[in-house]
Amino acid sequence: MRILVLGGDGYLGWPTAMRFSDRGHDVTVVDNFARRRWHLEQSTDSLTPISSLEDRIEVWESVSGRRIDARVGCIEDGEFLDAVVADCLPEVVIHYGEQPSAPYSMRSRQTAVETQQTNVIGTLNLLFSMKSHVPDAHLIKLGTMGEYGTPNIDIEEGFIEIEHKGRKDTLPFPKLPGSLYHCSKVHDSTNVHFATRIWGLRATDLNQGVVYGIETDETVRDDRLMTRFDYDETFGTVLNRFCVQAVVGHPLTVYGAGGQTRAFLNIKDTLRCVELAALNPADRGEFRVFNQFTEQFSVSELATLVQKSAAEVGHKVEIESYPNPRVELEHHYYNASNQKLLDLGLEPHPLGDELVKSVLHVIDRYRDRVIERALTPRTKWNPGELEGGALSVAQQT
Amino acid sequence: MRILVLGGDGYLGWPTAMRFSDRGHDVTVVDNFARRRWHLEQSTDSLTPISSLEDRIEVWESVSGRRIDARVGCIEDGEFLDAVVADCLPEVVIHYGEQPSAPYSMRSRQTAVETQQTNVIGTLNLLFSMKSHVPDAHLIKLGTMGEYGTPNIDIEEGFIEIEHKGRKDTLPFPKLPGSLYHCSKVHDSTNVHFATRIWGLRATDLNQGVVYGIETDETVRDDRLMTRFDYDETFGTVLNRFCVQAVVGHPLTVYGAGGQTRAFLNIKDTLRCVELAALNPADRGEFRVFNQFTEQFSVSELATLVQKSAAEVGHKVEIESYPNPRVELEHHYYNASNQKLLDLGLEPHPLGDELVKSVLHVIDRYRDRVIERALTPRTKWNPGELEGGALSVAQQT
Repeated sequence: MRILVLGGDGYLGWPTAMRFSDRGHDVTVVDNFARRRWHLEQSTDSLTPISSLEDRIEVWESVSGRRIDARVGCIEDGEFLDAVVADCLPEVVIHYGEQPSAPYSMRSRQTAVETQQTNVIGTLNLLFSMKSHVPDAHLIKLGTMGEYGTPNIDIEEGFIEIEHKGRKDTLPFPKLPGSLYHCSKVHDSTNVHFATRIWGLRATDLNQGVVYGIETDETVRDDRLMTRFDYDETFGTVLNRFCVQAVVGHPLTVYGAGGQTRAFLNIKDTLRCVELAALNPADRGEFRVFNQFTEQFSVSELATLVQKSAAEVGHKVEIESYPNPRVELEHHYYNASNQKLLDLGLEPHPLGDELVKSVLHVIDRYRDRVIERALTPRTKWNPGELEGGALSVAQQT
Repeated sequence: MRILVLGGDGYLGWPTAMRFSDRGHDVTVVDNFARRRWHLEQSTDSLTPISSLEDRIEVWESVSGRRIDARVGCIEDGEFLDAVVADCLPEVVIHYGEQPSAPYSMRSRQTAVETQQTNVIGTLNLLFSMKSHVPDAHLIKLGTMGEYGTPNIDIEEGFIEIEHKGRKDTLPFPKLPGSLYHCSKVHDSTNVHFATRIWGLRATDLNQGVVYGIETDETVRDDRLMTRFDYDETFGTVLNRFCVQAVVGHPLTVYGAGGQTRAFLNIKDTLRCVELAALNPADRGEFRVFNQFTEQFSVSELATLVQKSAAEVGHKVEIESYPNPRVELEHHYYNASNQKLLDLGLEPHPLGDELVKSVLHVIDRYRDRVIERALTPRTKWNPGELEGGALSVAQQT
């Protein structure tokens, strides 16, 4: 298949590109290096030393014998994106090309606007280009489980049957996004759903959990194929950050009570889920939503697991509760369905000691690259408010 | 009260500004004249000859003895808007400052991007400015009943209690917006709701029906205070357009079967609803949604009413079914609640012969300004598709 990967230089985008290339597909990646630039701007960096995109592509060709094509540009630039789509004529578009950090979106008006503009306008441009040039192609759009928030009912996959005053309909599952980044993903879902209803496009919205892990089958084939690994408070996700903290002996930064429960998955499972979606495309006019995760954990559970695994390999680390910089419920009901990907054949790699230890092992190799300043939370959801004050208005409805 | 009206040069914005000014409030209007520019670009115009904003303000001062302040600029320009809010320190912000046309949003990638950018980024900038400078102020945001689409259950006001697998929660009412403009309003609602939850702002989202009518108590005080009246296929709403068609003898352009049912209200009721919202503000942290309409009609019912009323004042006109340029269900269930504004004391002006005749009378005065070319539908929701073909994929879910 001809596959276009937007955000193909990123944590998941680059391994995804190699994965499909390795299986014989023709892969084109698009990136504007926004993530590398954002790190420059905040004096942080990936833990892993990553090669330039051109170097990665050369090494991949030497290792696999297969060429990945690259186009450098912003998808907010509709003419650039339109030219890429018209030229590549992809059968599958895998869209990771967004600003992915909740704290970044909450830092200032400017970063909030940048987030919603990059994400919403980029995706809107893509929908128009697909409609014009490849109306039969399958859009695989990365969303997030954070779109749902923490409702007091089970979280279904995108839609829910509602019975109300004696009538019934199956409607989009209500969303309670927890940051302006998460809001942008809800906006995307609304726009993509619209494009499937009105233009008959095919789309799969992958509402992904928090991804952890550092290696995939392809990244380990050469050090220069390594993917980025973010652990800073802005771009790092919680389990990855805990692992780095454990290695350098920084207390694990649990926000508040740590009762927040979220959905998680291994980076290898992310690639498999995207592959399953690509191999089983949505129908014309179908907006299909998969909740893409394998397990649910509370933040405290993760901290305890990392502490224990780290101790077993000689890293002693404390768990410390930090005032929660976010506005979120610290104790809540959480039960989400992930049946659709299991039905397609996903075989989860569960999280356990061994996985954590292998991540710790890789981190140990790059421990002298850790920037400790970036490990503690700084970005507050409601900086004006007194500690805890915002929670009083953080009603779910 | 100090009141800031965004979009204060528009069809509803200008009468709203006069209304509050007349009742002794200090009113500042912001506008970038986008609507006047969009008309220039498509060689159309308001039926009514409208004065410049400065002239309107001068005439209003001479008529009422009260000054309305004006600031010219784009709310997408966050620094401009922030300076206005910091300077005016409004207690109420009434936000009409958006691209309001569904067909305009569907015309091209450029107009779709312009719509979502203007609306979403403008509102996002406003939320940040309110948080910074007037966190206690009340945002009254104009939304649309079109955010809901036509679900097969009763439409509640913003939220719905859902019972699911033995648990219960009150969650945002699911949305099925029918154009990229309507999508932008859904995005706004998501962002405004977020700002109330996280920052404790107060907001009322007015999900407004289709507005008709031409005069308010203030516009009739001097011809130069008249508000704009759009009847073209892009910016005109259905009843206003039918009335113009009747006066010039153009067949009433019913789209498809005309069974589409929507919610409507008189322009005078719009002003009263906004006033009721302002006088009864939302609480801190509250996101309050009012469905702002007074009656429901099908498009056919409206056409029949206009045909009959027009005949009574000597205008003979045919009703003609046009191929529906939109992708929408032409027969569907529709039953929306509007209880909250009634509870606050709204006394609806129902639509009837007399109202239609008075609109026809005003239109007759300006009939030589009618641009007939602009009366028929041109903008198709799915221009690539064969006639009717898109409907097969226009599933609601």
